[in-house]
Amino acid sequence: MGRDAEETRRRLLRAASDEFAAHGLAGARVDRIAAAAGASKVLLYTYFGNKDDLFDAVYNRMIADLVAATPIDAEDLPGYAGRLFDRSMTHPEVVRLTLWDRLERGGQGAGQTLVQEANRSKVATIRQAQADGLVAVRFDAAELLLLITTMAAMWAFAQLGPDGPGDEDLAGARSTLVRAVRLLVEDRPSSAGAAV
Amino acid sequence: MGRDAEETRRRLLRAASDEFAAHGLAGARVDRIAAAAGASKVLLYTYFGNKDDLFDAVYNRMIADLVAATPIDAEDLPGYAGRLFDRSMTHPEVVRLTLWDRLERGGQGAGQTLVQEANRSKVATIRQAQADGLVAVRFDAAELLLLITTMAAMWAFAQLGPDGPGDEDLAGARSTLVRAVRLLVEDRPSSAGAAV
Repeated sequence: MGRDAEETRRRLLRAASDEFAAHGLAGARVDRIAAAAGASKVLLYTYFGNKDDLFDAVYNRMIADLVAATPIDAEDLPGYAGRLFDRSMTHPEVVRLTLWDRLERGGQGAGQTLVQEANRSKVATIRQAQADGLVAVRFDAAELLLLITTMAAMWAFAQLGPDGPGDEDLAGARSTLVRAVRLLVEDRPSSAGAAV
Repeated sequence: MGRDAEETRRRLLRAASDEFAAHGLAGARVDRIAAAAGASKVLLYTYFGNKDDLFDAVYNRMIADLVAATPIDAEDLPGYAGRLFDRSMTHPEVVRLTLWDRLERGGQGAGQTLVQEANRSKVATIRQAQADGLVAVRFDAAELLLLITTMAAMWAFAQLGPDGPGDEDLAGARSTLVRAVRLLVEDRPSSAGAAV
């Protein structure tokens, strides 16, 4: 694929991400995506197949970027949670695309394979850290990962509604998250955690 | 309204709840709702107005039922979380309708007023319990409520995807939740919490 084609492909993916994040799979309009990318619908179909395939391409890329940008650090799970939080704030499409995928496809889209692979690897990392005494063996590693990722996405979800935190509240929200995760993973959490 | 009309109204609301939970606001079909309720579309419009109004009616009733069924107990927030969890398992439409409302209406629907009223009252209850020394003053009361309700809905959300817990895992999930909330609200959490 030549440089122009590669660039058109990138523009289509960006436009598709915006459209799917806003309207979901059923509500997205392929002609709006093509128009926003300055490309023809024929080209879109040639590059990506049908609308479902295009959603898969968008979702896969979103997950791959997310996984690459937020490596787990089992020795510092509160810090890992903080980085997930940061990512959710700079990339609001992550929570929207995830919710649409769950509601409209039961989380059965192609991106799910990537999610499961990433999760398996992260669970193994946490389990090893528990075996090494770095993380409290209070929760099953998979449930701990679910707790952390859910809590980290909580404010991005709140921002979908009218009561989400404003920019001035984000530092406080991040601190709440980091302290909450610390309480879950420390062997002997104490109120000293409140000092962060 | 006579008894038959009341009964028809109830059937329409039930059918609408199923339809909106499955397909969202944009994807819901008024004729499918009327057919499922064994009523005419004219009657539906007479009772409830347009599709948006009907979503509001469904959402309002869902929230009112949820609030009535899960009173807060600030002296036992882990137990409160457990009851929210139980409700999310017996009423899977709660998480689906909430997600659709956020994605499709930015949480601006009429039901939001009820949610905010209920939340204000719960936050005041938690704050008082903090003042009385019953709940650790580690988190702002509003953020603590958000943490608890988010964690309580976590497994219902997971069940929208392929990896959600099966019936055989629910007791373990509930125990994880109760222990996690206990760590957040106890003044001196210790690994004794793991014994539950």
